[in-house]
Amino acid sequence: MNSMIISEGDRLQSVERAISVLLAFDAARPTATMAELAEATNLARPTVRRILLTLHGLGYVENSGSRWRLTPRVLSIGQHYSASNSIIEVAQPHLLRLAEQTEESASLAALDGADAVYIARVPVRRIMTINISIGTRVPAHATSMGRVLLAWAPSELIAQVIEETGLPAYTRHTVTDPSIFRGALRTVKDQGWSVVSEELEAGLISIAAPVRDQNGTVIAALASSTSTGRSSAAKLVSDVAPLLVATAEKISEDLGHHVPAAARSLRANAHEGFF
Amino acid sequence: MNSMIISEGDRLQSVERAISVLLAFDAARPTATMAELAEATNLARPTVRRILLTLHGLGYVENSGSRWRLTPRVLSIGQHYSASNSIIEVAQPHLLRLAEQTEESASLAALDGADAVYIARVPVRRIMTINISIGTRVPAHATSMGRVLLAWAPSELIAQVIEETGLPAYTRHTVTDPSIFRGALRTVKDQGWSVVSEELEAGLISIAAPVRDQNGTVIAALASSTSTGRSSAAKLVSDVAPLLVATAEKISEDLGHHVPAAARSLRANAHEGFF
Repeated sequence: MNSMIISEGDRLQSVERAISVLLAFDAARPTATMAELAEATNLARPTVRRILLTLHGLGYVENSGSRWRLTPRVLSIGQHYSASNSIIEVAQPHLLRLAEQTEESASLAALDGADAVYIARVPVRRIMTINISIGTRVPAHATSMGRVLLAWAPSELIAQVIEETGLPAYTRHTVTDPSIFRGALRTVKDQGWSVVSEELEAGLISIAAPVRDQNGTVIAALASSTSTGRSSAAKLVSDVAPLLVATAEKISEDLGHHVPAAARSLRANAHEGFF
Repeated sequence: MNSMIISEGDRLQSVERAISVLLAFDAARPTATMAELAEATNLARPTVRRILLTLHGLGYVENSGSRWRLTPRVLSIGQHYSASNSIIEVAQPHLLRLAEQTEESASLAALDGADAVYIARVPVRRIMTINISIGTRVPAHATSMGRVLLAWAPSELIAQVIEETGLPAYTRHTVTDPSIFRGALRTVKDQGWSVVSEELEAGLISIAAPVRDQNGTVIAALASSTSTGRSSAAKLVSDVAPLLVATAEKISEDLGHHVPAAARSLRANAHEGFF
């Protein structure tokens, strides 16, 4: 991404405000009055009114009396992201196979600021696994997908994430010390995968590997996630890492990345040993 | 939804334009220059420039040189719809069970204009089924989900969909005659479910049933879809309809809809016969 200087005058305030109104609806506020939205967005009520009428005209919100809510049309915006990203289409069959072979959920995530965002996912059919849907954001520093995305990121971006977030603890296992965290990222880069155990949530463990585009840039992380009741970090490393890395490389190859033959054959041998 | 009179002055043109720029990216145009976006949206290039800079400031688009593309942050907007709709959360375990019991993909859709929009889905792990994701839109008139959503819709809405779309044919099986179509909707309402066979795509068959909110209003359609190679319309009716209707009623009950006990016991008997 190029850096770009934007003056205040270049920004369209009403666009920013309209999106803030759309984002004001969530699980805690599934419906809202104009007054509630004005308070949530810190906008004047007449401003909120015009935004709601505009979004209503476009079909993104609807109202019953004085209460407003989002319509399913807002899902279309995300759908355009999916449609415009061949990685999701390319990765889907590989995610399915990975989920089948591991009998665990397989996910693909991209970095957005300090968060990893799920861009594709094949859930296994267990009640435990249903609460993550496309677009869900998780803190990059406390997840294996995020660690992979940061491990290959420019050092300025790593510094920015550390500074902005302060590496908050989500469990007593979360790595919160910046130098230990940087060391963990170096290890990920050396070994080619990341295992994170219960740093985001007790009982949750996952392993992730990098997916590269045709230029070799890491653009996504492929992950397999499970629970401590079903597996362990050591088992993920011994049983899942080779398959996961191989699957991530296959996706990268489908995206036009050239994996050196030497690396591929090493991988193949590793598989024979493990599977 | 209340009707509402909106004057031109109430609409924020820049919001409408910004959304049209977001929607200009798709599978055919995953990246675009300002000039291409200006042409696609019919906007002046300086307008497109200001919109892109605004969206860039908000993190929804990024650029490499002169080419722009969506970032995964746009998925967050859809995520807010999901988070604000308890129906998706309520329906998920039922969708999982339905997919397990039928070994076919289970979906939930809502009506948006003349389209049914997927709001939740549990895919079965078969290559054939992977190309539908949340937010995907299908023409309501040619799908079982859409027929269910229209069957219980106000007659003005049915008339509007017929008039706006003209009931286009997608295959030689698509019902395109308005009076036959209205008759099909009446049948759906009488029997409580809809089977549509190869009207959208050759080989594709599906069955759908209504999901109601606490007021008894049909707010979504629950569907099970398969292919003519694996099943038939007659088999869907005999083997899947009772389970599908029962599952849709369970979701409705979880949403606060009261299903009369007499209807429930009929349903239970039907199950014993079928399962």
